Amino acid sequence: MSADHSLGARSRRPTIGVFDSGFGGLTVLKALLELIPGADYAYFGDTARLPYGSKSVETVARYAVEAAHYLESHGAQMLVIACNTATALALDRITAAAHVPVVGVIEPGAEAAAAATKNQKIVVIGTEATVSSHAYRKALEARGLHAREKACPLLVPLVEEGWVEHSVTEQVARIYLGEAFADGFREADTLVLGCTHYPLLKPLLHRVTPGHVSIVDSAESTARAVASRLQQLVPATVDAEERRALPRLKFFATDSVEKFRRLGERFLGHPIEDVQHVDLKE
Amino acid sequence: MSADHSLGARSRRPTIGVFDSGFGGLTVLKALLELIPGADYAYFGDTARLPYGSKSVETVARYAVEAAHYLESHGAQMLVIACNTATALALDRITAAAHVPVVGVIEPGAEAAAAATKNQKIVVIGTEATVSSHAYRKALEARGLHAREKACPLLVPLVEEGWVEHSVTEQVARIYLGEAFADGFREADTLVLGCTHYPLLKPLLHRVTPGHVSIVDSAESTARAVASRLQQLVPATVDAEERRALPRLKFFATDSVEKFRRLGERFLGHPIEDVQHVDLKE
Repeated sequence: MSADHSLGARSRRPTIGVFDSGFGGLTVLKALLELIPGADYAYFGDTARLPYGSKSVETVARYAVEAAHYLESHGAQMLVIACNTATALALDRITAAAHVPVVGVIEPGAEAAAAATKNQKIVVIGTEATVSSHAYRKALEARGLHAREKACPLLVPLVEEGWVEHSVTEQVARIYLGEAFADGFREADTLVLGCTHYPLLKPLLHRVTPGHVSIVDSAESTARAVASRLQQLVPATVDAEERRALPRLKFFATDSVEKFRRLGERFLGHPIEDVQHVDLKE
Repeated sequence: MSADHSLGARSRRPTIGVFDSGFGGLTVLKALLELIPGADYAYFGDTARLPYGSKSVETVARYAVEAAHYLESHGAQMLVIACNTATALALDRITAAAHVPVVGVIEPGAEAAAAATKNQKIVVIGTEATVSSHAYRKALEARGLHAREKACPLLVPLVEEGWVEHSVTEQVARIYLGEAFADGFREADTLVLGCTHYPLLKPLLHRVTPGHVSIVDSAESTARAVASRLQQLVPATVDAEERRALPRLKFFATDSVEKFRRLGERFLGHPIEDVQHVDLKE
C-alpha cells in the first residue's frame, strides 16, 4: 500500500473514511453526505472478501484493520465502520489498531432506539451474523431496554437483486416481521434496521410494520454520531468557502470496479465515478 | 496438513473426494451415494470462504487446488468438483494440480442435456458467477445446441433459508423462468440445473416449467459420469462383502462444524455425523 494524502491535503476540510464489506455501507455514506456536506469522503468496499457474515472474529478483525489502515493512508482523519458485522465482531480491535477516531453503527443505532421507544420494547432485524453476535441486544439492554433480534437472511439478496419495491420482498418482510412482532414483542414500538442494506427497504418496511412502530435507521443515527464527533475534532477550522465546495468522493473496491459502480449507485442514490481497484491478499 | 490415509486403507473400496465451496455439493454426494454405494466418501466444504461466486479466477483456483490436495492427503482416489463456480473457473487448474482423476459438474450436465433435448434449445439456470463464465453455453454449443443462461441469484438464499416448498420461492422461480423461457427460447425443451443447490427445488421447478420441459439435474449426471470413470479405475477389485458394507462418510468444513451439520442435513437428506474442522489460511 502506498501512502497518498492527496485527499486530505487540499484544505482543512476533513476527510472521513467509510468502510464496509461491500455496498451496504453506501447507505451510511449517503446519510453522511446529507448531514455533513462540508467533508470529503473515502469509501472502502471489501467486495472481494464479502460477506463477512460467515467468517470468524479473527478473520473479520484482520480484514477490517487492513481496510482501516488503507483508509488512514489515504488521508482519513476519522473512520466510520459502516458494517454491522464488522462493528459487532471487531470494533474494539479496529479502534485499538487505528490512529484516528472510529465510529461504528451499533451504538448510534441503540442510542436512537432508546430515544425513540416509549415502552422499552425493541425489535432489531439484521443478518444471521449480526444477530448471532447479540451486539444489539447487549447495547440495548445496557440502556435498560428489552430487545428481540430477528435474522432476516433473504433481505440482503432481495435488495441486491434490486427488488426493493417488489411484492415478493413485501411478502418476505411480512413473514419475518410477523415472527418478530409476536408473543412478548407484539406491542414493541421501535424497529431497528441492523443492516446497512435495509434503509433501501424503509418505505416497504413502513407499510408492513404496525402503525405505532418507529423505524430507526442506523445509517442516519450513525451520521449524527459522526457529526457530533467531528465537531469536537475540527471545530470551525473550515472557512466558509471550503464549506460550500462539494464533497470529494473517492471509492476503493477489492473486487470488480464495474460491478461496484453498477450496484453501488442503487445504494448511494447517485452516480459513482472515481472507483479504484485495490488488491489485498485473501 | 497431515496426511491421513485411514479412509482408503480399510479395503480396496475406492474413496471418492467431493469438493464444494459449501453445502450445495452435498446434493452431488447424495446422488453418488445412491448410484455408487460401494465406495467411501470424503467431503470438503470450504464454508469459511464461500461464496466463490464473487471471487477472481485466481483465488477460486488457489482455494480449489488447496481443497483437492487436502482430499488427496485423506485418501481420495478420485475427485469430484461438486461446485459449478469452481468447475467453471478452475477445472483445468485443479486437473493439472491433482494426482488423481478429476470430474466436474458442467460436462456431465451438458452431456445429459444433449441426450434429453429434441429441439436443441436448452435453458440453463445458475448463479451469477456461473452464468457470467458462460461455461455451460460453451459446453452446450460444442454439442451443437442453443443455450440461454439465466442467473437466479435469489434461489440459493431461498434454499438456505429452508423455503424449498414455499409460495415465495414458487413466485421467484416463476419470475426467473418466465424471463428465461421467452422470445427465442419459449419452446426450449430442457432445463439444466446449473447450481448444486437447485436439486432441492426440483419438485417446485417441475410445477413452474412448461409441461414439455425435461429437467436435467447435474448432480445425477455427474454421479453417472463418476460411476463410469470409476469402473475404468477399479474394475471389479472389490469383493462382494466389501460391496455390501455401508459407505463410510467423512466431512471436512472450514467454518463452524455445528452449522455444517445443521444446514448440510437438508442437502444430503440424512444425518451428518463425522465432521472435522479444517483451518486453512484465508
